[in-house]
Amino acid sequence: MIRHEVDAWDTERQKKREKMEAIYQFSDGKVVKEDQIKQLLETAIRPGETVAIEGDNQKQAVQLSKGLATVDPKKVNGLHIVMSCTQMQEHLDIFELGIAEKLDFSYAGNAAKRLPEMIEAGTVKVGAIHTYLEMFSRMFTDLIPNVCLCVAEEADKDGNLYTGPNTEETPTIVEATAFKSGVVIVQVNKLVDKVTRIDIPGEWVDVVVPTEEPCVIEPIMTRDPQYIKDVHVLQGMMAIKGIYAKHLVTRMNHGIGFNTAAIELLLPTYGEELGLKGKICTNWVSNPIPAMIPAIETGWVKSVVAFGSELGMEDYVRERSDVFFTGADGSLRSNRCYAQMAGMYGIDMFTGSTLQMDADGNSSTVTKGRITGFGGAPNMGSNPHGRRHSSPAWNSMITNPSDPMAKGNKLVTQIVRTQTKAGPTFVEQLDAVEVGKQAGFDEPPVMIYGEDLTHLITEVGLGYVYMGETPEERRKIIAAVAGDTPVGHTITTKEINELRAAGKVAFPEDLGIDPSEATRERLAAKNMKEITDWSDGLYKAPPKFKNW
Amino acid sequence: MIRHEVDAWDTERQKKREKMEAIYQFSDGKVVKEDQIKQLLETAIRPGETVAIEGDNQKQAVQLSKGLATVDPKKVNGLHIVMSCTQMQEHLDIFELGIAEKLDFSYAGNAAKRLPEMIEAGTVKVGAIHTYLEMFSRMFTDLIPNVCLCVAEEADKDGNLYTGPNTEETPTIVEATAFKSGVVIVQVNKLVDKVTRIDIPGEWVDVVVPTEEPCVIEPIMTRDPQYIKDVHVLQGMMAIKGIYAKHLVTRMNHGIGFNTAAIELLLPTYGEELGLKGKICTNWVSNPIPAMIPAIETGWVKSVVAFGSELGMEDYVRERSDVFFTGADGSLRSNRCYAQMAGMYGIDMFTGSTLQMDADGNSSTVTKGRITGFGGAPNMGSNPHGRRHSSPAWNSMITNPSDPMAKGNKLVTQIVRTQTKAGPTFVEQLDAVEVGKQAGFDEPPVMIYGEDLTHLITEVGLGYVYMGETPEERRKIIAAVAGDTPVGHTITTKEINELRAAGKVAFPEDLGIDPSEATRERLAAKNMKEITDWSDGLYKAPPKFKNW
Repeated sequence: MIRHEVDAWDTERQKKREKMEAIYQFSDGKVVKEDQIKQLLETAIRPGETVAIEGDNQKQAVQLSKGLATVDPKKVNGLHIVMSCTQMQEHLDIFELGIAEKLDFSYAGNAAKRLPEMIEAGTVKVGAIHTYLEMFSRMFTDLIPNVCLCVAEEADKDGNLYTGPNTEETPTIVEATAFKSGVVIVQVNKLVDKVTRIDIPGEWVDVVVPTEEPCVIEPIMTRDPQYIKDVHVLQGMMAIKGIYAKHLVTRMNHGIGFNTAAIELLLPTYGEELGLKGKICTNWVSNPIPAMIPAIETGWVKSVVAFGSELGMEDYVRERSDVFFTGADGSLRSNRCYAQMAGMYGIDMFTGSTLQMDADGNSSTVTKGRITGFGGAPNMGSNPHGRRHSSPAWNSMITNPSDPMAKGNKLVTQIVRTQTKAGPTFVEQLDAVEVGKQAGFDEPPVMIYGEDLTHLITEVGLGYVYMGETPEERRKIIAAVAGDTPVGHTITTKEINELRAAGKVAFPEDLGIDPSEATRERLAAKNMKEITDWSDGLYKAPPKFKNW
Repeated sequence: MIRHEVDAWDTERQKKREKMEAIYQFSDGKVVKEDQIKQLLETAIRPGETVAIEGDNQKQAVQLSKGLATVDPKKVNGLHIVMSCTQMQEHLDIFELGIAEKLDFSYAGNAAKRLPEMIEAGTVKVGAIHTYLEMFSRMFTDLIPNVCLCVAEEADKDGNLYTGPNTEETPTIVEATAFKSGVVIVQVNKLVDKVTRIDIPGEWVDVVVPTEEPCVIEPIMTRDPQYIKDVHVLQGMMAIKGIYAKHLVTRMNHGIGFNTAAIELLLPTYGEELGLKGKICTNWVSNPIPAMIPAIETGWVKSVVAFGSELGMEDYVRERSDVFFTGADGSLRSNRCYAQMAGMYGIDMFTGSTLQMDADGNSSTVTKGRITGFGGAPNMGSNPHGRRHSSPAWNSMITNPSDPMAKGNKLVTQIVRTQTKAGPTFVEQLDAVEVGKQAGFDEPPVMIYGEDLTHLITEVGLGYVYMGETPEERRKIIAAVAGDTPVGHTITTKEINELRAAGKVAFPEDLGIDPSEATRERLAAKNMKEITDWSDGLYKAPPKFKNW
């Protein structure tokens, strides 16, 4: 046994002290000017360090990200970048410039196409694609940031931060950095005397950089109901009657898309007809999205815990504090980490969509030439083995009630069209397998594994995948609704009818749904104007959605 | 479609305003005196509300809990109590007094024996037993607190809180309550002009109650090495050589017990002999427990993220900031929620122990007459289906490498003796099944399900359960190390030898371990004095452990 020979056990603290002393040479206390960002980053970041950049799928540390792409690669290089979303070109430029080397991330927005090219060229080494909560987890174990570059709405000179409704992941990144002697740098839209609300205590923040232009926030969760098609309505009706009502799902999360928007807009109409109000869809893990407004206004929704906000929803949320988490100032308090946690352990169902699915029900949004990443889907769309509380929905999934060890599981529903412009959705092998190989990943970038899929809806019908007693039967249930695709061709009409008779597959008519009556007319709001009307004018549609 | 007929959408805010106005009649701003607790709680809590009580397995909101048991049940009744740990008698008294009706919790410390009696008598209705992260998740979905009763080390008159090293779950409970118009009440050991460090911003806190006596913190994670037996050493050596080294596990969590303490104390000796330093056990999710000190001092440990603190470790942690998460003030920043999150998604292995295991590997600490609950074990000891990053340990679990969809999984190791004073550990049916039925639970209170168990160590040997190609073979692997128990009797010597030959079961000699050399002499510290010496006197053993 030899004692560890170290000069000190606080080298990280010492390093931080040195950095901060150098920064204080040109800063005004904690405040650094926007035109000093290059100097700031060259002083705060040392070669090979781990740097967390706040780039959600909503707000972006724009000026700090741009600034990082301007540092001298002789001074700052070999960085390991940890971030939720590679959204800006600069997020990838830093790899080409030799400033950064390795990337661990969750979601590639605008970078989805450029990223695989850069991986192939060896310009960027990707550690892994994560689901958000997993990414945050590693910030506390083996990817602890030496420096973080975050963004907030307001700061005071002591560093107290008000994030506005988009609190998102700022508190989590800051905590992981601040308490392990990392340097916390935050760009802010405004420097104020007193912040509107304290979302993060100033003691945790080392540097604030007021920027001339506010950080960019995009309304990427908003879906205009005018683009919801009759087929979405049909699928939504199948979901409501065949899944939500059958399993009495009260606590849930919806992925973003026209399918889930259709469900949200059908609750006040079709859901009401079925007498389901108060019985389903009461407690949501969701961003405050406009498509939920009619359901909220008709009294369906008891609570919503949000990952982030959605542009235009600020005033509506403020006036609906019985439903949303809000601060004393009235505005939304979102929290990506807590909402993702709730999305794993505190809900009974995830409903989402995907681009490709194989015969086993594995699905991915990664297709040839595009690495989009996962976001929250794998976390919410997987069965939490650590969960120990039950609920009617959870229990309804038990297929072996006589087993004393029987337990329920989470419902994971995927809604897809069997074909899209890109070709068949159901494929023999996911593109993700080949993409993963080319990128050198240990495992293919699968979004939701077939073992976790419980329900599948296509325009053909609804497959109760969880009822499959064997892997083979699960595949047959998937094939039964896979239509005219390689997977759909693996089942006969006779087999399909047997599954329908057994209640393991339901076509619309089996659910008492007449496809000819599944039209847009059923939607509680057919366009953005009607959503705005429902909100009593509280929802302020962003310009790109304001078409009336 | 009918608009929801409500008078207002901010009824929760209004209710809070009314409560606070009534409290301000007798408070001094945010400060309420200890002798006013009864009045405070009768004013802050209304019948039928959901009340979160901070009662971790470490710190307890003692005075607030006692105060709750003194309120007039005519004024305050029918409460739904949400808490991590029912530790104090008062936590159950409130049910007998008619103040509370329903309980959702994670862990029953001292209440483990009284609780099942009360369930049977119908005095308390248990919603469910949760793993911590699951409990927190529900505080953001369907168990949102109307009031929370928390505890901190210091507060100032504005409500800013310093939690000391035991930050634990206070920030999570406070966030869930404060941002949904709940009333946040915190008892504090000291009211000060300026808090040592801001762990929670004062804006989130409504009432602080300085108490004469500090809150109780028990050193419940500390294990005195003098009670580690040779058999623990043997099992620890099997774990290090047969699991940690084989799978190169760097990121892990240890349950609390003499088995895991033995492993920690063998790293600087046996681990060093095997040349494993830097290759295993580098990034920990763990409380700062004394048994880790020799491993830290010999340079094994890179980082530790902690759920809470451990009494006596304050100064040691402060002087080892390269390893622990600490604040600018120097003391530990723990966070039960983030550490549990990291314990699910950011580690590769959980090693723990249990009281009973059945033939399928299901295990529970719930035995007849005792409902202990789970704590963090189900969360850390389950395979996270949402995880998408790989690691050498994770990948080493792949048993079907030719499958393009092959993926790794988390290692879940259980270490048990085949027999204890209580009888055989391996049983035909877990007591939990019967206890669950009697308590009216939907599912038996199983701590770790057999499907998640990957490795099993007894004094007989090591079973590589994950290598079982069928459920039947998994059972045989378990039986092979189950010794003279009902489960051990289900396998023949011939079958055991076949499993050993196949590398699916290893006896000590198969691992090159001579049981006669597995003695306490190998421990890096054999008693509390030696641990203290390793720490250079920084670890201050609490009186009950100070026996030199």
